[in-house]
Amino acid sequence: RSSNHRGAGAGAGAGGGGESRVPEIRKDSVQNRWVIFSPARSRRPSDFKSKSSTSSGNPPDPHSQNCPFCLGNEHLCAPEIFRVHPSHSAHWKLRVIQNLYPALSRDNLPVQPEQVDDESSSKTSSSSSKIGNNKVAGFGFHDVVIEAPFHSLQLLDLSPAEIGDVLLAYKKRILQLRSYHSIQYVQVFKNHGASAGASLSHSHSQIIALPVVPTAVSARIDCMKQYFEQTGKCNLCEVRVDDLLIDESAHFISIVPFAATFPFEIWIIPRDHSSHFHEVDNEKAVDLGGLLKLLLRKISSQLNDPPYNMMIHTTPFHINPSCLTYTHWFLQIVPQLTIVGGFEVGTGCHINPIFPEDAAKVLREVQL
Amino acid sequence: RSSNHRGAGAGAGAGGGGESRVPEIRKDSVQNRWVIFSPARSRRPSDFKSKSSTSSGNPPDPHSQNCPFCLGNEHLCAPEIFRVHPSHSAHWKLRVIQNLYPALSRDNLPVQPEQVDDESSSKTSSSSSKIGNNKVAGFGFHDVVIEAPFHSLQLLDLSPAEIGDVLLAYKKRILQLRSYHSIQYVQVFKNHGASAGASLSHSHSQIIALPVVPTAVSARIDCMKQYFEQTGKCNLCEVRVDDLLIDESAHFISIVPFAATFPFEIWIIPRDHSSHFHEVDNEKAVDLGGLLKLLLRKISSQLNDPPYNMMIHTTPFHINPSCLTYTHWFLQIVPQLTIVGGFEVGTGCHINPIFPEDAAKVLREVQL
Ligand SMILES: Nc1ncnc2c1ncn2[C@@H]1O[C@H](COP(=O)(O)OP(=O)(O)O[C@H]2O[C@H](CO)[C@@H](O)[C@H](O)[C@H]2O)[C@@H](O)[C@H]1O
Ligand SMILES: Nc1ncnc2c1ncn2[C@@H]1O[C@H](COP(=O)(O)OP(=O)(O)O[C@H]2O[C@H](CO)[C@@H](O)[C@H](O)[C@H]2O)[C@@H](O)[C@H]1O
Repeated sequence: RSSNHRGAGAGAGAGGGGESRVPEIRKDSVQNRWVIFSPARSRRPSDFKSKSSTSSGNPPDPHSQNCPFCLGNEHLCAPEIFRVHPSHSAHWKLRVIQNLYPALSRDNLPVQPEQVDDESSSKTSSSSSKIGNNKVAGFGFHDVVIEAPFHSLQLLDLSPAEIGDVLLAYKKRILQLRSYHSIQYVQVFKNHGASAGASLSHSHSQIIALPVVPTAVSARIDCMKQYFEQTGKCNLCEVRVDDLLIDESAHFISIVPFAATFPFEIWIIPRDHSSHFHEVDNEKAVDLGGLLKLLLRKISSQLNDPPYNMMIHTTPFHINPSCLTYTHWFLQIVPQLTIVGGFEVGTGCHINPIFPEDAAKVLREVQL
Repeated sequence: RSSNHRGAGAGAGAGGGGESRVPEIRKDSVQNRWVIFSPARSRRPSDFKSKSSTSSGNPPDPHSQNCPFCLGNEHLCAPEIFRVHPSHSAHWKLRVIQNLYPALSRDNLPVQPEQVDDESSSKTSSSSSKIGNNKVAGFGFHDVVIEAPFHSLQLLDLSPAEIGDVLLAYKKRILQLRSYHSIQYVQVFKNHGASAGASLSHSHSQIIALPVVPTAVSARIDCMKQYFEQTGKCNLCEVRVDDLLIDESAHFISIVPFAATFPFEIWIIPRDHSSHFHEVDNEKAVDLGGLLKLLLRKISSQLNDPPYNMMIHTTPFHINPSCLTYTHWFLQIVPQLTIVGGFEVGTGCHINPIFPEDAAKVLREVQL
């Protein structure tokens, strides 16, 4: 699969020298979806021999001495943003760095609306800015969080406090990104294993700061608003638990959601109402670290170290304060066990062979 | 990967005997998304040795004499719905059959709204039917179109008229499904190659008839409506072509869309305004067959026989006639060259390394 991807890149290079262009964000006006175009991405390396392993536990690249994320190889990386270096420790434990092949460019200053309208206005005589605004400059930030200094450590090997440090690094970086007026939303995510998209095996996650609110995020906010208008309550404060519960901690619950899109999908939800992930404090971060560790160990043990994605779903920065009553952040873990086919691509509706109650029971009862 | 999937099935079996349950369609009230739960799906076989090949041209199962879709093996299949058997031919050329492991059940009669409300009303005291309706019975139809009698033939090997026959079989089946009052939408799709989701290598496509309108389809209709309200025109009649054009035929154009979600994504759009795919007539079906063949040959040659999905995006059955002015069907082809990661799962926003103009130029200029 990776060779195909390279092929695709080469094809485009041959076709128009696209690799030198700056990134651009375009909106599909039929499907109402933003897409990021970023030629630089096709140059990023991969240390997985093949994108195809059944389990993500395939042996990491034998040349892990060349891994840019390993302790001692800092010179192979894009510039550092900050590091966590406990005073009792001989070396850093965690680094937040720039992505060397960023999807968005921090230098790509937003184009003025007039300029944005130029091209699309040739398509329609309407002066409506809605239709004109079908592209924006690819301005934004794309960072990597190196979760551990050593190649052999995965996130689930860290202690609750160390996982808490990773979560607090996300928080710190989000607070920095919030100071950029044109940043609307920050997506924190992790790809573990080649078939969950990871191109490097050293444990890491990523942070992308966007100048638009992605459509899935607006849809989520609208959906929670609708629930609030009908019930006067926050959807996730009221979430159905019963037979969907997996585990609980002091400040969080974990469930398989009632309409889980993927088999064994997990949501970790703060018990107390909170709109923004960056409201998490030190105590809650360690508590969440412990619950996350438990769940990652459970899926690893029950599902044979599956590839997985982890996403933090938070609330956009510049939101009307009245919306804070019904927006509630959560963390989602998706083991990648099935392959998406044409039905899902076409409809956005997924087919899940496992009922959420059954998945929750399995995960609740795993013996570690 | 397939073994993981099996593992997942077994896990759920252990957890609650889910396999015996009838399918159910649930709505996620946070993400506003329908999901089909269908335990029967986890039992379907796969004739790909591994889900992992780079190219879809991996050798088909050596035991293709056991392929249920091959001429002579009709007894291995679920019941036939109809076949195309030209009078000059010694055997059938195409069969439409029931899927043996259907995502939805044709016997699963829709549950009355009162019953649907039962469980969810314990979650909230609101009597609103909006929130109560978070699940419906998994009623619907799931068919397979066997596109050719022989294992060695792929869709691009057929003649324009033969591909036209496949398209006309979709049309015929859609018209049959339209007679069921509770069917709202029909998704026609094709998975080619294991990493595009195909579990069987014999050339085939599928038709799923749903009792709900999938969210991505409503979003598309809303988006086209908005364009119409702003311009008085149909978005796809007016679609930007210029440097996005690949090829044209008498009745269709093919482009890489302006905000293509995937590298080398292709849309084939009827020139004349038409809301429903099933309006296609015999002449247009052959014309479309020829254009489709050309494009499939181009991506196969340029991108090394990639796995791909093909989807027909049409308009729901029971739609207000006033909407027909701005809904316009199209066919989408998505070569699967990249792997979706946590950013895309989290935001619905994809990162595409190839600008559409560049992809269109490559596909326009491919020498066959
Ligand atoms: N020396 C260096 N210094 C700094 N950064 C370096 C570096 N070398 C490599 N990198 C970056 O490290 C990141 C590693 O990220 P992952 O392994 O999680 O997946 P990747 O982003 O490649 O793509 C996956 O995730 C994205 C987003 O979900 C999907 O678009 C994609 O298809 C999927 O494969 C890459 O983004 C790469 O650009
Ligand atoms: N003897 C027989 N008679 C009749 N039918 C038979 C049969 N033996 C097998 N089948 C059916 O034939 C179909 C073959 O379909 P595909 O190869 O296109 O992918 P599949 O539906 O398995 O899943 C892919 O597509 C779906 C929908 O996009 C995704 O949910 C999924 O993850 C992805 O792997 C299967 O649906 C199977 O149930």
